[in-house]
Amino acid sequence: MTLSKGRPYLAIPGPSVMPEEVLRAMHRSAPNIYEGELIDMTHGLVPDLKHVAGTRHNAAIYIGNGHAAWEAALSNVIAPGDRVLVPATGRFGFGWGEMAEGLGAEVEVLDFGRQHAMDMTKVAESLAADKDHRIKAVLGVHVDTSTSVRNDIAALRATMDEVGHPALLMADCIASLGCDRFEMDNWGVDVMVSASQKGLMVPPGLGFVFFNDKAAAVRSDMPRVSRYWDWTDRANPEFYYQLFCGTAPTHHLYGLRTALDMILDEGLENIWARHATLARAIWAAVEAWGQAGPIALNIQDTALRSHAVTSLRIGAPHGTALRRWTQHEAGLTLGIGLGMSTEQDPGGDGFFRFGHMGHVNAQMILGMLSTVQAGMTALDIPFGDGGLDAATAVIAKG
Amino acid sequence: MTLSKGRPYLAIPGPSVMPEEVLRAMHRSAPNIYEGELIDMTHGLVPDLKHVAGTRHNAAIYIGNGHAAWEAALSNVIAPGDRVLVPATGRFGFGWGEMAEGLGAEVEVLDFGRQHAMDMTKVAESLAADKDHRIKAVLGVHVDTSTSVRNDIAALRATMDEVGHPALLMADCIASLGCDRFEMDNWGVDVMVSASQKGLMVPPGLGFVFFNDKAAAVRSDMPRVSRYWDWTDRANPEFYYQLFCGTAPTHHLYGLRTALDMILDEGLENIWARHATLARAIWAAVEAWGQAGPIALNIQDTALRSHAVTSLRIGAPHGTALRRWTQHEAGLTLGIGLGMSTEQDPGGDGFFRFGHMGHVNAQMILGMLSTVQAGMTALDIPFGDGGLDAATAVIAKG
Amino acid sequence: MTLSKGRPYLAIPGPSVMPEEVLRAMHRSAPNIYEGELIDMTHGLVPDLKHVAGTRHNAAIYIGNGHAAWEAALSNVIAPGDRVLVPATGRFGFGWGEMAEGLGAEVEVLDFGRQHAMDMTKVAESLAADKDHRIKAVLGVHVDTSTSVRNDIAALRATMDEVGHPALLMADCIASLGCDRFEMDNWGVDVMVSASQKGLMVPPGLGFVFFNDKAAAVRSDMPRVSRYWDWTDRANPEFYYQLFCGTAPTHHLYGLRTALDMILDEGLENIWARHATLARAIWAAVEAWGQAGPIALNIQDTALRSHAVTSLRIGAPHGTALRRWTQHEAGLTLGIGLGMSTEQDPGGDGFFRFGHMGHVNAQMILGMLSTVQAGMTALDIPFGDGGLDAATAVIAKG
Amino acid sequence: MTLSKGRPYLAIPGPSVMPEEVLRAMHRSAPNIYEGELIDMTHGLVPDLKHVAGTRHNAAIYIGNGHAAWEAALSNVIAPGDRVLVPATGRFGFGWGEMAEGLGAEVEVLDFGRQHAMDMTKVAESLAADKDHRIKAVLGVHVDTSTSVRNDIAALRATMDEVGHPALLMADCIASLGCDRFEMDNWGVDVMVSASQKGLMVPPGLGFVFFNDKAAAVRSDMPRVSRYWDWTDRANPEFYYQLFCGTAPTHHLYGLRTALDMILDEGLENIWARHATLARAIWAAVEAWGQAGPIALNIQDTALRSHAVTSLRIGAPHGTALRRWTQHEAGLTLGIGLGMSTEQDPGGDGFFRFGHMGHVNAQMILGMLSTVQAGMTALDIPFGDGGLDAATAVIAKG
Repeated sequence: MTLSKGRPYLAIPGPSVMPEEVLRAMHRSAPNIYEGELIDMTHGLVPDLKHVAGTRHNAAIYIGNGHAAWEAALSNVIAPGDRVLVPATGRFGFGWGEMAEGLGAEVEVLDFGRQHAMDMTKVAESLAADKDHRIKAVLGVHVDTSTSVRNDIAALRATMDEVGHPALLMADCIASLGCDRFEMDNWGVDVMVSASQKGLMVPPGLGFVFFNDKAAAVRSDMPRVSRYWDWTDRANPEFYYQLFCGTAPTHHLYGLRTALDMILDEGLENIWARHATLARAIWAAVEAWGQAGPIALNIQDTALRSHAVTSLRIGAPHGTALRRWTQHEAGLTLGIGLGMSTEQDPGGDGFFRFGHMGHVNAQMILGMLSTVQAGMTALDIPFGDGGLDAATAVIAKG
Repeated sequence: MTLSKGRPYLAIPGPSVMPEEVLRAMHRSAPNIYEGELIDMTHGLVPDLKHVAGTRHNAAIYIGNGHAAWEAALSNVIAPGDRVLVPATGRFGFGWGEMAEGLGAEVEVLDFGRQHAMDMTKVAESLAADKDHRIKAVLGVHVDTSTSVRNDIAALRATMDEVGHPALLMADCIASLGCDRFEMDNWGVDVMVSASQKGLMVPPGLGFVFFNDKAAAVRSDMPRVSRYWDWTDRANPEFYYQLFCGTAPTHHLYGLRTALDMILDEGLENIWARHATLARAIWAAVEAWGQAGPIALNIQDTALRSHAVTSLRIGAPHGTALRRWTQHEAGLTLGIGLGMSTEQDPGGDGFFRFGHMGHVNAQMILGMLSTVQAGMTALDIPFGDGGLDAATAVIAKG
Repeated sequence: MTLSKGRPYLAIPGPSVMPEEVLRAMHRSAPNIYEGELIDMTHGLVPDLKHVAGTRHNAAIYIGNGHAAWEAALSNVIAPGDRVLVPATGRFGFGWGEMAEGLGAEVEVLDFGRQHAMDMTKVAESLAADKDHRIKAVLGVHVDTSTSVRNDIAALRATMDEVGHPALLMADCIASLGCDRFEMDNWGVDVMVSASQKGLMVPPGLGFVFFNDKAAAVRSDMPRVSRYWDWTDRANPEFYYQLFCGTAPTHHLYGLRTALDMILDEGLENIWARHATLARAIWAAVEAWGQAGPIALNIQDTALRSHAVTSLRIGAPHGTALRRWTQHEAGLTLGIGLGMSTEQDPGGDGFFRFGHMGHVNAQMILGMLSTVQAGMTALDIPFGDGGLDAATAVIAKG
Repeated sequence: MTLSKGRPYLAIPGPSVMPEEVLRAMHRSAPNIYEGELIDMTHGLVPDLKHVAGTRHNAAIYIGNGHAAWEAALSNVIAPGDRVLVPATGRFGFGWGEMAEGLGAEVEVLDFGRQHAMDMTKVAESLAADKDHRIKAVLGVHVDTSTSVRNDIAALRATMDEVGHPALLMADCIASLGCDRFEMDNWGVDVMVSASQKGLMVPPGLGFVFFNDKAAAVRSDMPRVSRYWDWTDRANPEFYYQLFCGTAPTHHLYGLRTALDMILDEGLENIWARHATLARAIWAAVEAWGQAGPIALNIQDTALRSHAVTSLRIGAPHGTALRRWTQHEAGLTLGIGLGMSTEQDPGGDGFFRFGHMGHVNAQMILGMLSTVQAGMTALDIPFGDGGLDAATAVIAKG
């Protein structure tokens, strides 16, 4: 007998739980791609996407995942031989840097480890050392889903300004957009990339690149940009066909429309507040459990923790054992530890992650936490008292 | 800001949470109703339904809800002027009796209140008093969703046998089939009614009537049975069209097929065990909370509690306030108290119910319980310590 | 190799082709049944249903098929021993009469054969002969889907009035509502029954009964009406729960809402005109084919032909052979002949039917007709020239 | 009044009509991306895709449209400064060449106009003139959806072999795969690109690149390939995550699985035969109409006509007028003329296209043709007799 037979709950750091409204909107016959509903609807998406991104500038939509958005953004401003600086705070910082390398860039990585945010002093040093301004862009991951650190992107801009470095500031908000506060224009971000399958609550398949005029000017000076990645016509199309460099991702667009309607209906400030409160409930539970057991949050400083994903340490083999238990005995799928393997724990079995992005409410998060406690109980992993009471208290307070 | 924006959880005593597999199976164009897939599939449903019901005898499927199944069953064996005995343990016992009255029956109700199971001594007395055997049927509700009492149907049969009364034993398993153990043939039930929207995990719209040869013989002696309710052709159709007395409920049949596949795949014993364990988790939480607060299970004796629905008392206006809080602040919809109003509490605001029938797993139930604790905290309703720990401990033990 | 692999087209006289909008609306988790969207939405259905029925009076919705609606309507006004008159023009006239018999009524059938509408002179004779007004209701099928005859219901009312007979006029609009013009109040209909799966474009599962004050008065005088069929509380519910005598057909209601929106958006007059033109295209093709072949429309007089279903004669075994060919070689499912068997053709293999009700447009009907011509060609069934040109000419004219 | 209200039919050259089975399979919650069903299912896709492509070699799946697949394929074998030869027979030949230009290639285009297939003599001349073998790849579009010409890819390989030119043969089968016979290995194709939304019957969002060992060797010699486009890890992944260079297109994969099941079930030879017969029905109708009217097939030679898309000439403004009429009056959406504008007809209003790819059967094609005839009638566009009879005769013969 298993207690898992019921509605599954996928609490991984993306793809996130999709609203049934979104899935329903995607269930339709192929639409007319020449005129009518699809065309009108698509044009309406762009202003709403820009609102969510906090920008008055440009948006390009790509059929692709987050890696596609990474490469798309880079392709428009980084030519072979160009230099980029990557202050890395987890697996995805490295990953974006590798995409830049794949395009022929020279990549300077500042490795801040697996438990820390960017150290702006070190970033400033690197920028200051680049006296001839060879660094063309700084690639900053807002929330790195492997470590669940949340970097201060506004501070990164301030650092660049203080040093007087003209590089573009490019931000990866794949795991944060629609979850953690992000204000592209106000924070001085030149290029931002995101994707559909996390805070935006749409199945994987769409990547987004937002860019301002400074970035557009850099693009204009590029010797060549591949046709598919070129954001120029996508952001300012003369014909519908140019919006997606060919056939439109028809079904995803209907899903995105519905998701954006839900986001606008709730309001960004409310969404950010909801994610913040739910995150605090998670932290409260884990901190209580950790008083008398191995479980611990990966990031110590609450100000540096993502509100959308939480990395945890629990010691091998507990992480993997716990994930298996919650899935097979309770119907809850947790995220694997990513980029966390060590010599002692080559499989990363001492880590796991909570995804809590997008379409998540209090009863889901409390179900997730209670199930984890049940799992620790079942597996004889010790834990401190009061975790669930602490979490419910946070929720009760709202 | 509300913490309710996410996947809603409807934890009411039916309609229950439908598996997405079931909903997906129902999303299809109208099928060929003359031959092929639909026809073959429909005929395969009956043996599987009978397996779930624990009978080797007959099954009739009706387009209708539980009330329709009530009337259908009665119409085949109760003629105007016939007498029925209703040992009532909640709102639905009375309700079934009213349906019999509507058909012209004389209805004798034994009212066992709102917190107790049938008292078999009283039932025996009534039957014994019916010396000329005017009582043609005893209507026993297995689980009354208003009180969440679970009656001992096998004991009801034993009581009838002891008294030597020849009446039909008719059981209402609308809220128990596919949740609580029920064995129609082994328990000596002559007629059983159920519906699609609870343990069978299909949207409301199908009612089921199972009957054995004794009941069929009573039907044969009826002066007249209305064409639509007549179970004869439905259970033993010569033509497909007779199965449903007209057009088939095509889309629901696909849903039912999928639900039965899921049930057979898990296995009835496993399903019953899952419901039992989840119910014990609920009881454990509530009993702990009740040590220092007003919340209490409606049924004291664990042996008499349903594994599919739980009625709770918490004092007006807490019940309604709590339901509103969990829905509007956490995304959890609880069941209203039903048939529980009193002079002091005319609106029944001191009661609420948990539905935990069908497609429910551990993470859902724990989410429900934690959310209730959050709600009691938010609303300053006192409660005893350790409720959630007690529930997780039950789940951990499996 | 078969040419049938593609989107199937079910052109039978119901269930009809469902709009994907309707199916999409039905694909959803179980809703809150106590308050909110479902409740508000349900109450909005009734005025729109009444608009479609052409009545200012009462509507009751039943979970059930057309046969259920038949029995429901009868149960409210016909008691055992009451007499009804059935001017039958096909299988469904007899069927409704049988339902009345099942309720204990004395049924007088006027059989107008399989190719003719009601002869009002004969109806008048029967009514006039009923000097003591024992006939309590006249059951008139508007469109009998077996013969595809369309009876003149307003003329039936006029006939009753001329004779001065006080019986209720009950109309079956299952196959005509939302297809052929019908005006309940203007035409003097007292009770009308319909169902969801034809012109209303929703999967089978809902029956409708409309009734005026005269019928309500008859109901009031009934000695007893079964609880489930009683329309009183359904039409004027104090509580939501009474609307459906128990659990609501939640998912069908969402489908119905969407279908009604589509109907209101197009407009009843436009819908009637669309069905009329499409029907004329069918007639034009068949009449041309019939000039040099066995195919023929079952009803000669154009004024008596349904705009929603067409019965055809083609001689055994051509009917069945043609249906098989269109299904297996072209992806088109046609309706079987119903109630048309004769001594020479016991299987009714010389007949078939077109369904063209609800969600049908010109390209569908033309595809159906062209496929039938292809089938006749393949099967060496002779046919006259110009059928498709005639049909396209009707469509071209609009 | 419009006759268009019914099930819409989108008969454009992609996106094609999607089977409801495919859409249903895509309607699901986000799956576990670490283990279980999704992972197993994805690995099973590759052999089936290769079967459809007619290759024993390698397949890479991209999230993207056809243009993405173009760029992906080119990126793996064409470096800046490399030379490609494009024998263009329509808009898409030019388009693929432009993608190569965007990657820095020197592109030599042989323009064969808008009504002709590749002239292999001219191709041979170009290749022979390239004495130092600077041409690294020949880009051949199998079926150009703008002109509907179908090129002889095997003959293109033979031409290359006769000249003894070592360039890669790259084929675009976006509009032909799963419709027209294509045998990658047997025909000597080194790289083939396709996409999901035409013969493969899945919504737009997936591109496919197939490549053999010769192409893989060219890839190995490339100085650099962008990470996202690199096919190496995609085709031979060590980890699931590499299959899609990041997050998998979860929902499309379920759709693709279902589509491939349908394709395997019908069988490629049967599918090709079905498309061929349906195409001949179209040609028969148009040729008859063209005897006394302006409508004409764009490609004269039947051997050079696509079986999946048909370009037509009808003279401005008839093309656009006809498309509007069929959409607004009959529910049929036809494809616009693409790349066909001339000085006299700058808007390309004298052209239109039929899409007949993938999930198409006889009744659909006949509906399309009859509707076009109705449109020509309505718009007073003259046409010859017997078009529909000719088409039905082709269908009847099978």
